[in-house]
Amino acid sequence: MSSKKLWFGSDYQEFAHEKILQRMLEVSRTHHSGYGHDDITASATDKIRKAIANEEADIVFLTGGTQTNQTIIDTMCAPYEGVIAAETGHVSVHEAGAIEFSGHKVLTLPSHEGKIHADELCSYIDTFYADANHDHMVFPGMVYISHPTEYGTLYTTEELKKLHEICEAHKIPLFLDGARLGYALAAARNSEEKIYPSLPEIAANSDVFYIGGTKVGALYGEAVVFTQKNQPAHFETRIKQHGALLAKGFACALQFDELFTDDLYQKISQNAVTFAMEIKQALIQKGYRLYLDSPTNQQFFIVPNDMLDDLSADVVYSYMERYDENHTVIRFCTSWATTKEDVDALLAQLPPILSGNS
Amino acid sequence: MSSKKLWFGSDYQEFAHEKILQRMLEVSRTHHSGYGHDDITASATDKIRKAIANEEADIVFLTGGTQTNQTIIDTMCAPYEGVIAAETGHVSVHEAGAIEFSGHKVLTLPSHEGKIHADELCSYIDTFYADANHDHMVFPGMVYISHPTEYGTLYTTEELKKLHEICEAHKIPLFLDGARLGYALAAARNSEEKIYPSLPEIAANSDVFYIGGTKVGALYGEAVVFTQKNQPAHFETRIKQHGALLAKGFACALQFDELFTDDLYQKISQNAVTFAMEIKQALIQKGYRLYLDSPTNQQFFIVPNDMLDDLSADVVYSYMERYDENHTVIRFCTSWATTKEDVDALLAQLPPILSGNS
Amino acid sequence: MSSKKLWFGSDYQEFAHEKILQRMLEVSRTHHSGYGHDDITASATDKIRKAIANEEADIVFLTGGTQTNQTIIDTMCAPYEGVIAAETGHVSVHEAGAIEFSGHKVLTLPSHEGKIHADELCSYIDTFYADANHDHMVFPGMVYISHPTEYGTLYTTEELKKLHEICEAHKIPLFLDGARLGYALAAARNSEEKIYPSLPEIAANSDVFYIGGTKVGALYGEAVVFTQKNQPAHFETRIKQHGALLAKGFACALQFDELFTDDLYQKISQNAVTFAMEIKQALIQKGYRLYLDSPTNQQFFIVPNDMLDDLSADVVYSYMERYDENHTVIRFCTSWATTKEDVDALLAQLPPILSGNS
Amino acid sequence: MSSKKLWFGSDYQEFAHEKILQRMLEVSRTHHSGYGHDDITASATDKIRKAIANEEADIVFLTGGTQTNQTIIDTMCAPYEGVIAAETGHVSVHEAGAIEFSGHKVLTLPSHEGKIHADELCSYIDTFYADANHDHMVFPGMVYISHPTEYGTLYTTEELKKLHEICEAHKIPLFLDGARLGYALAAARNSEEKIYPSLPEIAANSDVFYIGGTKVGALYGEAVVFTQKNQPAHFETRIKQHGALLAKGFACALQFDELFTDDLYQKISQNAVTFAMEIKQALIQKGYRLYLDSPTNQQFFIVPNDMLDDLSADVVYSYMERYDENHTVIRFCTSWATTKEDVDALLAQLPPILSGNS
Repeated sequence: MSSKKLWFGSDYQEFAHEKILQRMLEVSRTHHSGYGHDDITASATDKIRKAIANEEADIVFLTGGTQTNQTIIDTMCAPYEGVIAAETGHVSVHEAGAIEFSGHKVLTLPSHEGKIHADELCSYIDTFYADANHDHMVFPGMVYISHPTEYGTLYTTEELKKLHEICEAHKIPLFLDGARLGYALAAARNSEEKIYPSLPEIAANSDVFYIGGTKVGALYGEAVVFTQKNQPAHFETRIKQHGALLAKGFACALQFDELFTDDLYQKISQNAVTFAMEIKQALIQKGYRLYLDSPTNQQFFIVPNDMLDDLSADVVYSYMERYDENHTVIRFCTSWATTKEDVDALLAQLPPILSGNS
Repeated sequence: MSSKKLWFGSDYQEFAHEKILQRMLEVSRTHHSGYGHDDITASATDKIRKAIANEEADIVFLTGGTQTNQTIIDTMCAPYEGVIAAETGHVSVHEAGAIEFSGHKVLTLPSHEGKIHADELCSYIDTFYADANHDHMVFPGMVYISHPTEYGTLYTTEELKKLHEICEAHKIPLFLDGARLGYALAAARNSEEKIYPSLPEIAANSDVFYIGGTKVGALYGEAVVFTQKNQPAHFETRIKQHGALLAKGFACALQFDELFTDDLYQKISQNAVTFAMEIKQALIQKGYRLYLDSPTNQQFFIVPNDMLDDLSADVVYSYMERYDENHTVIRFCTSWATTKEDVDALLAQLPPILSGNS
Repeated sequence: MSSKKLWFGSDYQEFAHEKILQRMLEVSRTHHSGYGHDDITASATDKIRKAIANEEADIVFLTGGTQTNQTIIDTMCAPYEGVIAAETGHVSVHEAGAIEFSGHKVLTLPSHEGKIHADELCSYIDTFYADANHDHMVFPGMVYISHPTEYGTLYTTEELKKLHEICEAHKIPLFLDGARLGYALAAARNSEEKIYPSLPEIAANSDVFYIGGTKVGALYGEAVVFTQKNQPAHFETRIKQHGALLAKGFACALQFDELFTDDLYQKISQNAVTFAMEIKQALIQKGYRLYLDSPTNQQFFIVPNDMLDDLSADVVYSYMERYDENHTVIRFCTSWATTKEDVDALLAQLPPILSGNS
Repeated sequence: MSSKKLWFGSDYQEFAHEKILQRMLEVSRTHHSGYGHDDITASATDKIRKAIANEEADIVFLTGGTQTNQTIIDTMCAPYEGVIAAETGHVSVHEAGAIEFSGHKVLTLPSHEGKIHADELCSYIDTFYADANHDHMVFPGMVYISHPTEYGTLYTTEELKKLHEICEAHKIPLFLDGARLGYALAAARNSEEKIYPSLPEIAANSDVFYIGGTKVGALYGEAVVFTQKNQPAHFETRIKQHGALLAKGFACALQFDELFTDDLYQKISQNAVTFAMEIKQALIQKGYRLYLDSPTNQQFFIVPNDMLDDLSADVVYSYMERYDENHTVIRFCTSWATTKEDVDALLAQLPPILSGNS
């Protein structure tokens, strides 16, 4: 756990941006009503509404990703409904069954580099309703996507619109998990063709989504946005029932109030993506093979197994999966706090891959 | 919600102690492994183990009270077991059914100023097992007490020992909710007869308890202590399943690491209790009637209804319950952040009660 | 378990009325669609609609009492709602936490010989909504009553109407557990003042109720009646999800089809109540003290402890509770299958109680 | 739903064997203790223990398949564990989410004509434990197989042994869903090579299984067998909590007592399989294409879509799935009650398929 290593393991490995902590320190003994009924929450809500260009959205602040996914899915699905997700989706695989814990089945579609395809979604729903036996099956009650996905990939604006149209046609909500949303938005700004959705476009083409704080500069916190006047009835009670209601709601809200001041959320996200692109280009030049082409802060490479031991000694990275007998897929993840020194040191550390070895 | 009011509504209305925020700021960009597998968590664990005089205790950091109660009760009770609690207990009344949400019934005993009585506990368990039909009933699987209680009262060391003996005899764990534990410990130190349990005595006479951070100087966080090598199997997985696993576990742990350095937890708790005692004495002298005699930071008074409107204009306090046609029970709550200026202003604000009016 | 004993332990201790079994035998190899989509279900539904004087009621057949209570409460309450019941109600005490298993709290009111009082119901709901903190509490979402109660007592028509008015005013359903409904209806017919509700009056003054089969002549089965076009959406799916959907729905329906032919349900219920009244009168004359005055098939007496051993040797009865140091409350229960010979033998078996001994 | 049709839709479309109903009629008014504490339950238990050659097995009688699957999986898995099943398994697809309703994820493996492969099971478990992140995933806590499968296929004795060895090695139970077990046993007896397991071999190579009654001659009922002294603690309470405890346990037990007298279960199962083989041979000769080769009472054929309308007019069969643009997979299912007249009429009804058309 020594800090002397190079940390590219994930984007939740540092505390929080100094502007947030500095402001907390300044107001540390000021008084506020609990449970989100306070002025800071009101201020953060206003700023987010402006940023998403939807003045009527309902905004609620929760603590972390799994908690947010569980609470949204459980409160927006009827008890007899499940949630459709990619088989690689975070809710499908890496939440220890938190969705099933609250009674809902995760209905999986094939993953295409982490994304679901509109035609497969249509087909799933059509096949379900065509089955005479569907009353004995779990009804599709919501569609879950992550953006960026667990593989760093992004839905294009066209893809997102298409998914949302399908959801609207079947009257089921589209839920976008934005635990790393900042990095998606940075990639969208980077894209010359402007093919990826902006924050207002995401708000316009989903029914509920969240703006991730934990992985983008906050100490903790996810800002949940209901875009369609569709916040579940008695939502505060249901959050409490999930054990997810924060007494000091104002402390979570302050972080978003700061992140949405002077484009801080945008700037720190850009930092991560810029360095991720630099790592990608440099490693390709060194002969590394991309596992897939991610435009965001997570970069995946196929590396020979025999370099892993040396690498682990100096670098914190993520093991993703076995690729073949001799190769492994690994991930380097930058964050809002990644520095040029770290990136240079990483690149210096990583040896070139000879073509015969890759 | 103006800060110009006098804030005695609860002990979660300020951010966090400056020492915590200052240290966070200093280390804001240092790197740490996630999910509690980090050096700060190890350090905070060590400090708490020393403070409770139990070097082998397991310590886990969670976010808030209801989440902690739900997670502990659900993971330590078998699915066919419920938790025994006072009918006024937080888990019985004010958690929006979070315990039942995870499948467990709250089995209630009469409340005696917020406490349960050992003889009534014995009687409950004995009657249960004597009932030939008890296989069709919810088994008592745990005993929940809060200390301080929801009425500010404390179990004496003798009372706690007695409850723990009953639990041990029936092989069910005694769980002590210490959301406000600091204020209980301050009262214990204040007591001339030393009738209330110290932190090591609490650890020695319970199976699981938590040291509240949210209400005692932290931004958020509760330190759960398993005293008997009895942490549930696969506890990290179960916490995740509850949506309660913190990615940045180190950020929660840092707060306890700081609170348990140089007796900070003790000092700031003492601040609250000292001012609470001052308020109590002053109001009694002004003719106010105590609802009950609390030695901790929550003080309950029976006041004439006709003074409530004026009071609400200037003071944030808690409405507790209707006392009779003309009177109401209200609560003034001090905190780690309460100042002498606030207390003086409050006392200046509160008019004397004429004996005919009380 | 020898059949030579006199069986007054409960009303589920015999198989089923011969007319039901005879008809099953006659049609044993006829073919029917599964899951309630069959002609016999349609026929039984028609007969029940006529009997309750509500041609538009929805009728669903389930297997047993606890399953029915769990399924109705879980599907008619929102997840943040609980069910109000007497503290002695079957759902409160004797269903092993089946209601909490599905996530709902049982909110208890005092029991008055098994019944709840309208004024206490009103007060509970009013106090709940008056509490500024009620968003952190379990919302009252349904009222559960049993009729007959667990103590054999009945709501009068006036009492039932009053409860239903309160429920309507608060827009929450009134659910009547009729596991022993036949015996309530027999008592209603016996009453000279006609103070107890008839079957159509029950249907008119509740939102959902069930006609018990298991305890009134059927092999198994409870006929659930939704009186207000209020059957939950996708109810077949939710029943399946509860593990409560019968493949051979027609076999359950046939039993009600037979019970509602030629007043069979009425006649066999009358048998039980007539014998219960005979036992009550005879035992009072013998000096036995009634625990309470039940007009139905369950009769409760306070007996000296020292007669219990002898009694147990020859009679199957129910232990209810300890009355005082020297006395116990026991229950004799008649059923649709009780015979005059059994009753005569029981009365011959029971010694007179001398006044000094009672 | 007229009985004039030919009924080959499923094996739950008739009432029950006459011997069962006749005996119920004979004992209709005899008295028995409730909840399985009676002599008939003891007798049925003895007979089943003999039939499975395991005198120490625990036997419990439940009502239907989904209820049994839900109760066994929920009580034998820890809350953080899921159940591994074929993606076509009944628990995966056709139980309306009953498994997730009780909090457990269904972890799917590829289906090979309804069966799972031992090597894929090994690989799944090994990959899980090799994943450094597995504490954030659902632990595999049980393996579920159906025998016959939903496609009428059977595990060979060798396959079953291999699966059981894997489960034993990982200390997780193997659960065999025997909703149609009689038809598997009939096929085992028919097999000249004796490749399929007998009832004692099934008991010896599984940890828990059930002997289906509902689909094999009973009115309702499944006999659950715990083979390893592994009945969950407080199982009666947990069954009750699931809403699955039968008051008249003796009525369910009587059916198995009769089915296991004079080989009735064996004889009526043989009836179904004999006719299924006759249908298979006759249809192959008529040019029908098998979808797969089932040795049990379910037979699957690929038929041209344009013959379905005519077929539906006279025959009750099951639609399984779309095969291609012009063909559909359908199922004919025989039962304990199928007659030679029905089979002859079915075969007369079905036209030959010309080779150009198939």
